[in-house]
Amino acid sequence: MNQLIEHIRKFIEVDDSESEIIASYFERESFKKKSLLLEEGQICDIQYFVLKGCLRLYIVNDKGTEQTLQFAIENWWITDYMSQQTQNPTSFYIQTVENSEVLSIDKNSMDDLLARLPKMERYFRLILQKSYAASQMRIMYLYTQSAEERYRHFNRLQAEFVQRIPQYMLASYLDFSAEFMSKIRAGKV
Amino acid sequence: MNQLIEHIRKFIEVDDSESEIIASYFERESFKKKSLLLEEGQICDIQYFVLKGCLRLYIVNDKGTEQTLQFAIENWWITDYMSQQTQNPTSFYIQTVENSEVLSIDKNSMDDLLARLPKMERYFRLILQKSYAASQMRIMYLYTQSAEERYRHFNRLQAEFVQRIPQYMLASYLDFSAEFMSKIRAGKV
Repeated sequence: MNQLIEHIRKFIEVDDSESEIIASYFERESFKKKSLLLEEGQICDIQYFVLKGCLRLYIVNDKGTEQTLQFAIENWWITDYMSQQTQNPTSFYIQTVENSEVLSIDKNSMDDLLARLPKMERYFRLILQKSYAASQMRIMYLYTQSAEERYRHFNRLQAEFVQRIPQYMLASYLDFSAEFMSKIRAGKV
Repeated sequence: MNQLIEHIRKFIEVDDSESEIIASYFERESFKKKSLLLEEGQICDIQYFVLKGCLRLYIVNDKGTEQTLQFAIENWWITDYMSQQTQNPTSFYIQTVENSEVLSIDKNSMDDLLARLPKMERYFRLILQKSYAASQMRIMYLYTQSAEERYRHFNRLQAEFVQRIPQYMLASYLDFSAEFMSKIRAGKV
C-alpha cells in the first residue's frame, strides 16, 4: 500500500490520516502469470494499480489473434475506461504477463473515495493527463513510424521492459509484420 | 463564455460567482479558416476550448505530407498535452479547419484557476478520462479495422462531421490508402 501512497505523494500532499482513508478503499491481490482479470463481454468495473509484475490489455481480433494494445508495469494504472464509464461490455482482455501484485478498486469505491477526499481528483487528473499525452504520442508513432523505427524507439525508451515481455506480445503491441519479426529473430535488426 | 460554463455544469456544480472566476481566466479569440495556432518546434503553452468551428492537430511527416491525428469541434478541448507538461518543443501543428471561435487558457492561468477553484480538478479529470477512453478505442480501431471499416464506423458515429471536413483531412485521419481514396471518390464505397 505504501507504494501507492508514495506514488500519490509525487503529485499531491497526503498526510498519514488521509493515507489510511485511501488505503481503506483498495484491495491487494496477487495473480499468477497469465491470469485473466477482465474478459471481452464483461463490464469493466475495476481499475488496477500495479505494485509488482506486469499486466497487459489486449483484444482478440477477427482472425482469433491476440493484439496487445497496452502494458502496465510497476506504478502504472490500467483499466478499460470506456467500459467503466459507459457500463457497456468491454472489447478488451486484461491479463497478467508475469506473476503480479496489484491494488484494485471498483467504480463505486472510486466514486466514494473521490467524494470523501476531493484532493484525489487532482492526482487522477494528473495521471490521466500523462496517460492521454502518451497516447497522443503513441497515435503519432503508429501513423508515422515504420516497424523498425517503432522497435528502435521503444527499445531506447524501455530497454529493461523489452527484456521482460515475450517477443510475440511486443510484436503485436508495435504492430510488426511477420517479415520484420523474422528479421529480429535472425538478429538482423 | 456561457457555452463553457454550460459544458462544465454537465460535470460539476458551479454557481454564478464561480462562473465569473472561471471566465476571468479565459480569452475569447476568433480565427479565420486555416490559421495556425501551434507550429512544430514551439512549446505548446495554450489549451483551446472550441466554441464554434473546427480545429485539427496534425504532423508533417518525413515526406512533407500532413497527417491529421485529431479534430476538435464545438465543446471539445484540444492541445498538445506532452509539450505542455514537459515544456519541450511540440511535434504537432494545430490549425483551424473552419473559421473558428475558441476560448484559450495558458498553462500558468490554468494552474492558477485550479489552485483557486480546486473543484475544476474534477471537471478536467472527467474530460481527460473521456478523452483517454476514446483514445484507447481509437488505438484499437487503428490496429484492427481496415480503411473501409474505419470509414463506415466514423461515418456512422460522426455523419454530420464527415460533411464538414475536407476529404483529404479525413483520409489522413483514418489512414486511407490512395487506392481506397479513389474508391471513395468514384462512389464505390
